[in-house]
Amino acid sequence: MSTIELAEAALKRILQDEDRLHAYAWLDEATVLAEARRLDHEHLRGPLSGHTVAIKDIFDTVDMPTACGSPIYAGRRPARDAAAVAAIRAAGGLVVGKSVTTEFAHLTPGPTRNPHNPTHTPGGSSSGSAATVAAGGASMATGTQTAGSIIRPAAFCGVVGYKPSFAMISRSGLSLFSETLDTIGGFARTVSDVALFVGVMAGRSDLMTPVSPQAPRLAVWATPDADNAEPCVVVELERVADVAASAGAAVQTLPDAAGWQALLEAQKVIMAWEGTRALAFERQVHPELLSGPLRAYLDAAALTSPETYLEALHTRQTLGAALSAAMQPFDAILTLSAQGEAPLAETGTGDPQFNRVWTLLGGPALHLPTATGPRGLPIGVQLVGNPGNDHRLLGTAAWLEAALS
Amino acid sequence: MSTIELAEAALKRILQDEDRLHAYAWLDEATVLAEARRLDHEHLRGPLSGHTVAIKDIFDTVDMPTACGSPIYAGRRPARDAAAVAAIRAAGGLVVGKSVTTEFAHLTPGPTRNPHNPTHTPGGSSSGSAATVAAGGASMATGTQTAGSIIRPAAFCGVVGYKPSFAMISRSGLSLFSETLDTIGGFARTVSDVALFVGVMAGRSDLMTPVSPQAPRLAVWATPDADNAEPCVVVELERVADVAASAGAAVQTLPDAAGWQALLEAQKVIMAWEGTRALAFERQVHPELLSGPLRAYLDAAALTSPETYLEALHTRQTLGAALSAAMQPFDAILTLSAQGEAPLAETGTGDPQFNRVWTLLGGPALHLPTATGPRGLPIGVQLVGNPGNDHRLLGTAAWLEAALS
Repeated sequence: MSTIELAEAALKRILQDEDRLHAYAWLDEATVLAEARRLDHEHLRGPLSGHTVAIKDIFDTVDMPTACGSPIYAGRRPARDAAAVAAIRAAGGLVVGKSVTTEFAHLTPGPTRNPHNPTHTPGGSSSGSAATVAAGGASMATGTQTAGSIIRPAAFCGVVGYKPSFAMISRSGLSLFSETLDTIGGFARTVSDVALFVGVMAGRSDLMTPVSPQAPRLAVWATPDADNAEPCVVVELERVADVAASAGAAVQTLPDAAGWQALLEAQKVIMAWEGTRALAFERQVHPELLSGPLRAYLDAAALTSPETYLEALHTRQTLGAALSAAMQPFDAILTLSAQGEAPLAETGTGDPQFNRVWTLLGGPALHLPTATGPRGLPIGVQLVGNPGNDHRLLGTAAWLEAALS
Repeated sequence: MSTIELAEAALKRILQDEDRLHAYAWLDEATVLAEARRLDHEHLRGPLSGHTVAIKDIFDTVDMPTACGSPIYAGRRPARDAAAVAAIRAAGGLVVGKSVTTEFAHLTPGPTRNPHNPTHTPGGSSSGSAATVAAGGASMATGTQTAGSIIRPAAFCGVVGYKPSFAMISRSGLSLFSETLDTIGGFARTVSDVALFVGVMAGRSDLMTPVSPQAPRLAVWATPDADNAEPCVVVELERVADVAASAGAAVQTLPDAAGWQALLEAQKVIMAWEGTRALAFERQVHPELLSGPLRAYLDAAALTSPETYLEALHTRQTLGAALSAAMQPFDAILTLSAQGEAPLAETGTGDPQFNRVWTLLGGPALHLPTATGPRGLPIGVQLVGNPGNDHRLLGTAAWLEAALS
């Protein structure tokens, strides 16, 4: 199949669903067809040839506007591609459009709906990316996570979502929220596809093909917040652990690590402190164009004292190191991805409470869709590892995916 | 003095020297006067009121073009101010222009000359920022450091330069080169001014006024590279240590920490790996508009294997931790800032060999100008500390500045 045929098929598929899904912030057939023609003309073949890719609308793109989910930047035309986008194009990936982000990748939702049931949220902030991959509009999509913006929408939409180790993929050309938390990752339908995709964005050939361990060492830990989760995801976590054990994994329970709650609160403080600084221009010059909830959040965050922020950084360093040490013997921690099935869209994009600590620690996290919940929406499990252990985590996830199939 | 009077005086001063210095990439009287009128009209008073500020041309500015020292972005008009610029404006600082950066803050020089002798380099990459502060064109200027781009030009131009702990100031709206090294900081003529300036950019009120210790604990360490330095800076380091001891500091020699050379090489590998990824778009789409040296550097860097990069990250973690531990008992390490006086402009912008390791470690670093070298150009000393110890380092630098005066 030529890239032009691929483009035509993808556009047809996207447009079939778009009135219901609203996954795209910007979609233009002529631009996509021109890009496909360029790829065919240049005979560019790379690891992403044959793949269609949606780009979250906080990544700069030279041929498509980048609005960051905000009226402040409606129609903004960047002078360049973000580094991750340039890597995707160089690998032969066909960019099909800009996917909807919540406002500045924070909590105020965009129009996107869950492909499995349009009354429900796709999750956020990478809403359109997860939705379009789930609906088959694009085979891959970029995302970013500051609290739970990759893992949560992946869970709600039933696709594989991967947040690599912090700083693995250059944020050049990305709209920043939190200097020490924002992490680029992606969505795909399989572990091997997500590994290929993230490996391309990072320029890490060693990650592009997951290598499964013979018998992974897994620790199951539903975290002290499991009480806040719906029974279906807690039961599913146990089922997946049982399947893994039957398939040969060494499965243990993680000794309940102290400090979960303190780490959770530290993540909130750090995100708010850094977010209010990153959005200083928007808050000063265009306050009337920020949503009410984001403005209120930033105004409150601006009152945080340096002492509170420094204490949160200290908590990350000390309690984070203790949790990392407890995780070290294992190939992955098996835990909850989200509190349950996707909530109703009118309630927002869901709560990142099962993701905040892992983003704070900076290690890799992957959502694996494994089942359907009582309301007919996707559920699954999250695998997490220590910073730098992406190779090990992807291999373990591929092993688990095979064990469950 | 009204801000409009301040602006007129600053512009007059800048224009007197500009034909000789070439410190500015963009300078427009009408824009500066309009901004001054706005500040006067809004009666905005803040910690930077009365200060004129030059912005390195890799920070986005909404009212001035941002070209990153590259013809690729000549005349580029960002839709926003970088977060650091927004913080400067909110604090009442008057932005007077965009100061010259080397190409993408790497090594290819811009036109700027050293204010103390125009046949010599001002250093790089923050060339225009250091030069204009030294010449009295602006009282403060932003900079960034990936290897030695703040400390080295501060040393060559004879001003105070400060690189805070990594990630202290949001890089939102900054053109990135190295994801894990690029650090925003600034230049001023005194330690208290640089503390105020950097405290404003970070939104850290606790840093804005340095608090000097009674009797600082200093370790003198010229590093194993001292053999490559000119005698004048080695002798000056000894003189400053003697003055400090006489003024009551506890001065020791740092036990020669192992690993300096390995850390230096690791910094080079990490910078090259991350830089070639950050500039993927420019390298793919506009290779003919990159300078020959930068293109060759990026092409070579693109051949680095993931294993080499991961090994460099590992070196940073292990040997970096060992060096940090050796530094921990001290308020500051007193060391060389650069290899000597500013070299001739025709030879480039100088070598960051005395800065790479400290940037890699991520702690605060400050250049203090202390004397004049044999060729009549400024020399001084560098103070460095561990990550997060900015308060301690600034207080120690203020103490040393007073002891030397």
